[in-house]
Amino acid sequence: MDQGEGASGRIDPELLGLRDSIDNVDAALIHLLAERFKFTKRVGEFKATHGMPPADLAREAEQIARLRALAKAAKLDPDFAEKFLAFIVQEVIRHHEAIKIDG
Amino acid sequence: MDQGEGASGRIDPELLGLRDSIDNVDAALIHLLAERFKFTKRVGEFKATHGMPPADLAREAEQIARLRALAKAAKLDPDFAEKFLAFIVQEVIRHHEAIKIDG
Repeated sequence: MDQGEGASGRIDPELLGLRDSIDNVDAALIHLLAERFKFTKRVGEFKATHGMPPADLAREAEQIARLRALAKAAKLDPDFAEKFLAFIVQEVIRHHEAIKIDG
Repeated sequence: MDQGEGASGRIDPELLGLRDSIDNVDAALIHLLAERFKFTKRVGEFKATHGMPPADLAREAEQIARLRALAKAAKLDPDFAEKFLAFIVQEVIRHHEAIKIDG
């Protein structure tokens, strides 16, 4: 049968190779995200200590513009890069709210 | 004033250093995501050529379990890792739909 996965459940080597690459990229993404949340946790603590508000619209606008430019250069949809940042920032805010509740 | 950002707009070196690290991580994330979409584009093309359905629930379940384990080891919230994968897969499906419309 002309399918990536045979009746025996064996996967075509080309598809398997692509999936292995995706898995490698995903492992790298997870570890970078873990590191990113360590940094944003420290930012949250810094801001709490110095009486700064959690949100900083000027900084966020800079981040969006920078990520859109990086995405464009890497041939990634800039709209997706912006949505991605919003997705991450949403989680950061959730963490910062948790810090406030804990403290 | 005891704020991370002075009246002159100068940012505290500690906060600046953390933001620089976040920016570096974000640049890495964007480039990895660009690479990931290149791989999933090839998977989409492979599946289209071989008459395979775009979704593969067994593969997705494996990915979720693997990412949750990796997240746990990296001290990242496994629920966030799962949400992150869902966010990415949503975009992959959007790309695959676009391929189908184009083709």
